[in-house]
Amino acid sequence: MPETVAIAADHGGFDLKAVLLHELRALGYDAIDLGTATMDAVDYPDFAAALARAVADGKARQGVLICGTGIGMSIAANRHSGIRAALCHDNTTARLARQHNDANVLVLGGRILGVEAAKDCLRTFLATDFEGGRHARRVAKLS
Amino acid sequence: MPETVAIAADHGGFDLKAVLLHELRALGYDAIDLGTATMDAVDYPDFAAALARAVADGKARQGVLICGTGIGMSIAANRHSGIRAALCHDNTTARLARQHNDANVLVLGGRILGVEAAKDCLRTFLATDFEGGRHARRVAKLS
Repeated sequence: MPETVAIAADHGGFDLKAVLLHELRALGYDAIDLGTATMDAVDYPDFAAALARAVADGKARQGVLICGTGIGMSIAANRHSGIRAALCHDNTTARLARQHNDANVLVLGGRILGVEAAKDCLRTFLATDFEGGRHARRVAKLS
Repeated sequence: MPETVAIAADHGGFDLKAVLLHELRALGYDAIDLGTATMDAVDYPDFAAALARAVADGKARQGVLICGTGIGMSIAANRHSGIRAALCHDNTTARLARQHNDANVLVLGGRILGVEAAKDCLRTFLATDFEGGRHARRVAKLS
C-alpha cells in the first residue's frame, strides 16, 4: 500500500503545489490535495490547519505546505500539537529537518524557491530517516 | 530609551549569537542575552521557551533565536501563543517576514548562514515594518 502524503497551499503556493503533487504521484505516493483549488487569495492559516489535522489524525503520514515564503505556513502549522513543520530552502536543510528534528511537515516558499530546488527538497525530505539518539530528547520537548 | 531585543541560541548557534549580540549593541539596541553561555550541548526547546517568555511578557519587543539550522528553534518558538517566529535565510525572507507576517522573532541557522548574511537578515528584520492590510486578517488567525 502506498504511503499517504497530504499537500496544501495558499494562492502564493498554488503553482508549486501542482508541480509537487505530480512529483509525489510520480514517486509512488498516495497524495491528498487539501487545496487551495484556485488562484484566488485565501488565508494560509486555514490551509495549515486542514493539513495539520490530516497528519495529526493519521490520514497522512507526512505533509507539505506552501505559501509565498513558507514563513506564514510554518508559524501556523507549528501552532498545532504533534506537528513539526520545517521551512526548508535546499537539500541540506530538508535532510537535517528529518535527521535532527523528525519533521513531519515540509514547508516551502513558492515565491522563493524554483521548481527544481523544491523537488529536490521534497525527495530528500521523504527519503531521509530520523537519527534519534540525542535528538529524540529534544523532539520529545516539542509537545 | 533604546528598544530591547532578546537573543538566545543552543550550542549550534552559540558563535553566531556572539556576533549578533555585538551587532545589536552596535546598532543601539538594548540586547538581552538569554544563553546558552557555553559550547556544551543543550536542548533548543528550553532556550526557545525562555525567549518566547521574554517577548510575550514584554521584556523584549523582538527576539532572535539561533540553532544549527534554525528549524528546531522555529518549531519550538511557534508552539508559544503570541510568538510569530520566522526562519529566514536572506534579506528577502527577513523583509517579507516583517511586511507580511509581522514576525516578532527572527530565527537563523548558525551552521547554514555565514555571518554577513546573518547580519543582513538581522538589520533588515529590525528595520522593516508590518504592512497590515490584508495581511492583518491572516496574522489575527495565528492565535
